[in-house]
Amino acid sequence: GAPPGSGRGILERLDSGEVVVGDGSFLITLEKRGYVKAGLWTPEAIVDHPDAVRQLHMEFLRAGSNVMQTFTFSASEDNMGSKWEDVNAAACDLAREVAGKGDALVAGGISQTSVYRHHKDEARVKKLFQLQLEVFIRKNVDFLIAEYFEHAEEAVWAVEVLKESGKPVAVTMCIGPDGDMCGVKPGECAVKLVKAGAAIVGVNCRFGPSTSLKTMKLMKEGLQAAGLQAHLIVQSLGFHTPDCGKGGVVDLPEYPFGLEPRVATRWDIQKYAREAYNLGVRYIGGCCGFEPYHIRAIAEELAPERGFLPPASEKHGSWGSGLNMHTKPWIRARARREYWENLLPASGRPFCPSLSQPDA
Amino acid sequence: GAPPGSGRGILERLDSGEVVVGDGSFLITLEKRGYVKAGLWTPEAIVDHPDAVRQLHMEFLRAGSNVMQTFTFSASEDNMGSKWEDVNAAACDLAREVAGKGDALVAGGISQTSVYRHHKDEARVKKLFQLQLEVFIRKNVDFLIAEYFEHAEEAVWAVEVLKESGKPVAVTMCIGPDGDMCGVKPGECAVKLVKAGAAIVGVNCRFGPSTSLKTMKLMKEGLQAAGLQAHLIVQSLGFHTPDCGKGGVVDLPEYPFGLEPRVATRWDIQKYAREAYNLGVRYIGGCCGFEPYHIRAIAEELAPERGFLPPASEKHGSWGSGLNMHTKPWIRARARREYWENLLPASGRPFCPSLSQPDA
Amino acid sequence: GAPPGSGRGILERLDSGEVVVGDGSFLITLEKRGYVKAGLWTPEAIVDHPDAVRQLHMEFLRAGSNVMQTFTFSASEDNMGSKWEDVNAAACDLAREVAGKGDALVAGGISQTSVYRHHKDEARVKKLFQLQLEVFIRKNVDFLIAEYFEHAEEAVWAVEVLKESGKPVAVTMCIGPDGDMCGVKPGECAVKLVKAGAAIVGVNCRFGPSTSLKTMKLMKEGLQAAGLQAHLIVQSLGFHTPDCGKGGVVDLPEYPFGLEPRVATRWDIQKYAREAYNLGVRYIGGCCGFEPYHIRAIAEELAPERGFLPPASEKHGSWGSGLNMHTKPWIRARARREYWENLLPASGRPFCPSLSQPDA
Amino acid sequence: GAPPGSGRGILERLDSGEVVVGDGSFLITLEKRGYVKAGLWTPEAIVDHPDAVRQLHMEFLRAGSNVMQTFTFSASEDNMGSKWEDVNAAACDLAREVAGKGDALVAGGISQTSVYRHHKDEARVKKLFQLQLEVFIRKNVDFLIAEYFEHAEEAVWAVEVLKESGKPVAVTMCIGPDGDMCGVKPGECAVKLVKAGAAIVGVNCRFGPSTSLKTMKLMKEGLQAAGLQAHLIVQSLGFHTPDCGKGGVVDLPEYPFGLEPRVATRWDIQKYAREAYNLGVRYIGGCCGFEPYHIRAIAEELAPERGFLPPASEKHGSWGSGLNMHTKPWIRARARREYWENLLPASGRPFCPSLSQPDA
Repeated sequence: GAPPGSGRGILERLDSGEVVVGDGSFLITLEKRGYVKAGLWTPEAIVDHPDAVRQLHMEFLRAGSNVMQTFTFSASEDNMGSKWEDVNAAACDLAREVAGKGDALVAGGISQTSVYRHHKDEARVKKLFQLQLEVFIRKNVDFLIAEYFEHAEEAVWAVEVLKESGKPVAVTMCIGPDGDMCGVKPGECAVKLVKAGAAIVGVNCRFGPSTSLKTMKLMKEGLQAAGLQAHLIVQSLGFHTPDCGKGGVVDLPEYPFGLEPRVATRWDIQKYAREAYNLGVRYIGGCCGFEPYHIRAIAEELAPERGFLPPASEKHGSWGSGLNMHTKPWIRARARREYWENLLPASGRPFCPSLSQPDA
Repeated sequence: GAPPGSGRGILERLDSGEVVVGDGSFLITLEKRGYVKAGLWTPEAIVDHPDAVRQLHMEFLRAGSNVMQTFTFSASEDNMGSKWEDVNAAACDLAREVAGKGDALVAGGISQTSVYRHHKDEARVKKLFQLQLEVFIRKNVDFLIAEYFEHAEEAVWAVEVLKESGKPVAVTMCIGPDGDMCGVKPGECAVKLVKAGAAIVGVNCRFGPSTSLKTMKLMKEGLQAAGLQAHLIVQSLGFHTPDCGKGGVVDLPEYPFGLEPRVATRWDIQKYAREAYNLGVRYIGGCCGFEPYHIRAIAEELAPERGFLPPASEKHGSWGSGLNMHTKPWIRARARREYWENLLPASGRPFCPSLSQPDA
Repeated sequence: GAPPGSGRGILERLDSGEVVVGDGSFLITLEKRGYVKAGLWTPEAIVDHPDAVRQLHMEFLRAGSNVMQTFTFSASEDNMGSKWEDVNAAACDLAREVAGKGDALVAGGISQTSVYRHHKDEARVKKLFQLQLEVFIRKNVDFLIAEYFEHAEEAVWAVEVLKESGKPVAVTMCIGPDGDMCGVKPGECAVKLVKAGAAIVGVNCRFGPSTSLKTMKLMKEGLQAAGLQAHLIVQSLGFHTPDCGKGGVVDLPEYPFGLEPRVATRWDIQKYAREAYNLGVRYIGGCCGFEPYHIRAIAEELAPERGFLPPASEKHGSWGSGLNMHTKPWIRARARREYWENLLPASGRPFCPSLSQPDA
Repeated sequence: GAPPGSGRGILERLDSGEVVVGDGSFLITLEKRGYVKAGLWTPEAIVDHPDAVRQLHMEFLRAGSNVMQTFTFSASEDNMGSKWEDVNAAACDLAREVAGKGDALVAGGISQTSVYRHHKDEARVKKLFQLQLEVFIRKNVDFLIAEYFEHAEEAVWAVEVLKESGKPVAVTMCIGPDGDMCGVKPGECAVKLVKAGAAIVGVNCRFGPSTSLKTMKLMKEGLQAAGLQAHLIVQSLGFHTPDCGKGGVVDLPEYPFGLEPRVATRWDIQKYAREAYNLGVRYIGGCCGFEPYHIRAIAEELAPERGFLPPASEKHGSWGSGLNMHTKPWIRARARREYWENLLPASGRPFCPSLSQPDA
């Protein structure tokens, strides 16, 4: 069947119970492709190498994403100087161009500021958000996402600025089950954000799939206890991080150049999508480490509920079925769900441990 | 300084002692991006989704590749039917287009046939190679690569066909230290291939970096013992496979959808590049699992010998130096070579083993 | 110097701040030596093979134990039928015989009953304890230990019976940080037991060293919050069990015949002894899996505080110093504390995971 | 049925096709019990603590051992000075005392000398062996074992001395598949030893079960190729050492105080016994790390062939059957062969690797 969501806004979709598939990793993925510098993590590639960014947007669209998030992470004036405005504008145009090729909305994205960390100056922080928002309004994005906040206070400020636009506001914190950097628990964070005006709340980044779902459960319980209604969003890392401390992946010794052994398989992500769905989360995507095939895994896992597969599934046999013509019988034997669901993949690294001690 | 190789052919480069950086993974990488179907592993994307393939070529060029290999793996008539000719022609054009944007040569690539496996019919096999070669000659590729042969006999046939063109011929087998599927040892394989007319011999695919270098050592010793001269090429997997049997990665239970924990880090690949260089290999690239940042790692490791860095290094601080401005001191402390060279990265998977038993 | 504790009772020792070293594993150790049947876990060897039991007592005494606990685990009438009385009497005699060869007290031990699990009948349970106690009184043990209780209620009943004797009563539950099988938290358990009359409270068995210390911390905090005073005792497993659920080691798939890879090293136990001491625990011993050399490790770690080494240290160079005459220099290099403290010992089992999922 | 071997010598047993079960670990086991000092590894406990040694002999007898080997490892004059003679004599008496309580023979044991390593002086080395042999003859041991030789040459000298006694001579080298320290391959070692007069040849110590069986296979093939007949003996480590280099366990960083995670389970040893039997080895025992329950595992695995179980099996349900009355159903479910044969036991150490790099 044809995707049912076409032409409708994010809240229309979520209010009607549809699943919205988010997009995946831009910074980490484009770092590996050669267009983003680790440490800086700024999105100037949108101007300098637009073809590379367009291609990644296209891959997520093809994988089933319903949201093209503008590639504007850290693209505020404090991080990028005078380039910030061109970057934000170009990112909106490119996201819109690709979104138009499929059933996707454009989300303008802002993230936590260095000004907050250094000065906690509400006026200055809000001014930075306001400037980005003006570009998003001019470019007429479909909705807004404030993401990667480690302090509930700054996230609330972001929501307060964004909601003035009248567009729907989603907000995701980069926290785990222990809560934000000031000790505000996930449930309390969610309550503050919804009260501030967010329609969609959840987490992104810093923690792996199963840890992020634990945080979502706490957010959901907090909202329920407070008698509040909101849509839930989860966009976890594509890396397994059971050994994380409160600070998440950045404190693990493998960050950012040795995370390879932690990358989730597509089957791990199908499990994540199912569990997120069962928890009541309806906006499900990914953050750092989420490659296009991980997004496809979300769309494939929830295809029964949604009624359709994403375009990229033309190149993917469900549960390994593409192997059923292999000449080796033991490889043909892998063309089934039970095989991949139960596989315990080896690291190929017998001299390495399975968990690390976080540096902090 | 400017790259010294410009405008010169593959043998001029190798004869003068230059390092030639190969390209990386197409099938596995484009599978993850949504354009190749696992099981089939055919390159019809070159016709159906040329932008996606162009982008990947561009990333390898930017990472430092001196060779744009035509995306023609398995693109013979027996695998692709009547589409084979358009695919080969389009692949040549696209490789040439991208090669022209930097210092790269175009290599026309053929690989083992299903006809050999089923019939061992020399005339039919050679006919398939001949057909592909005609396209490569018409498109005037710079040199030829016969790759992914598990039988020395078929590889010899391929070399015999390709050398008729008068263009330089490279050949890589997909074998490990135990030799080919009929028990021909690596040294003997190398001798046969050089005697058949190959100017460059080595291995690609099926085995990880350190295993492939063991095979290369045996090839080198075989050639030395036979008093033969040839250039050496290695294009290993980007996955660690110390537990492989004779059949290589395909027999591991994780193949092809659970190999994530085995992906090499950039530091693993710098080590591989250095060891390959020390062994006398001068054409160094990768196969399945080699992402653009892995190719960049080869180019960065050998930058002192070559005298220049690849374009993509503008977005990469050597040995993690891009972290030296991080706000957290324990992350700044990772901005040094010793840190990454000595890191033993955890899998984040405590319920998984570190090695697997091959299925065959 | 001569051991200061000689001739004094358990409370005199603990009240004066001395460290009391407990003994170690009987059932699991004698199972491996061929004298106890797994599944039954009854101590009939005390009658059938007294030499084997005497030898183990001797080894613990030599390793530094200050307590010879009667080998009477499960030796109540409900488990052993009419044999129970002979077993209890023989166990007292043997413990006394060995204790007399060194500086050790005799502790009469009782443990949880099957009657409690099936019937929760206070009168019947107390009657079983009463019968064992009569033997202990007749044999004039020095003090009493009620151990391996998974329900606070039954442990309280045990304490209530034992304290009638007028002898000091120690009590250890086999619980982890999550508390007893009815959800009574460790702190609350400790409070109930002290209020019931126990002079010494803590945990034994079911959980590894570091998990057991977490439980002890909670017990200590519970007692402090309640304004109660008691001596603390810890006798953990000699196995690492970070993956345990609430039920402890018995629910791990390796129990009881595949626990070998989890056995603690002597260095792990030195760390455990130091941490227990720092937490304020002064009665430190072990349970299943604690071999004589583990007990020696406690005595050696705390030798600076106690002022003397145990007899078995005549056969043990502190921190590996016995290796300093080895002919191989790289083995001599292991004769130092930093080496063993920092060693991350490999399992030699690359096909096995590092953690298990408990069966319940 | 009654054990068939009673009263008959080692060669009568082996010639008739019987399985002879060896004994296990003395030095490492008594180190953990507090009676042997690591680094020295000398057996003065036979004089100083005879009860401890007697008990261990008893446990092996009870576990099914048919051989009580004198506790005389390293008990030559060069290692023990003037004490050597009393130690050898006492060891013979104790072994005989215990052997008489069951169906076991007494084997007098000698091992490699420090004189060989330092001087390679045949006359001096043979003199040391001769002195020990005189005690064994005076005490009338049943046969002789020369064990733990890392050089074929010294092992040959030992055999030459021992065979003069007229008693059967067994000889075991402490080598792996790579052969002795001078590069003599296992097959060649076996041939030299049989030609020197050994009736039984094989390996003991330094390598784990599966590695030792690889060495045995090479020895068997060497003998077959040379047309020689001999009985085969294997007494491997009780530790898994797949990561050993040529020097074996002593070069692993965990030796000797961190080997715990490598200890074999009883099921590993049943597999070892079966594979040894299938290879044609009929004298099967263990060395360092082989506890009494490991010896019982050999006797139980081969009970069908031998027709009887060892005494200690009265306390051991075959394949975990003793768990079939457990109150928890998931533990009862472990009372079956398939469960234990397929268990992949976790290390409980997620921060540790599964393999180590040998120090040499």
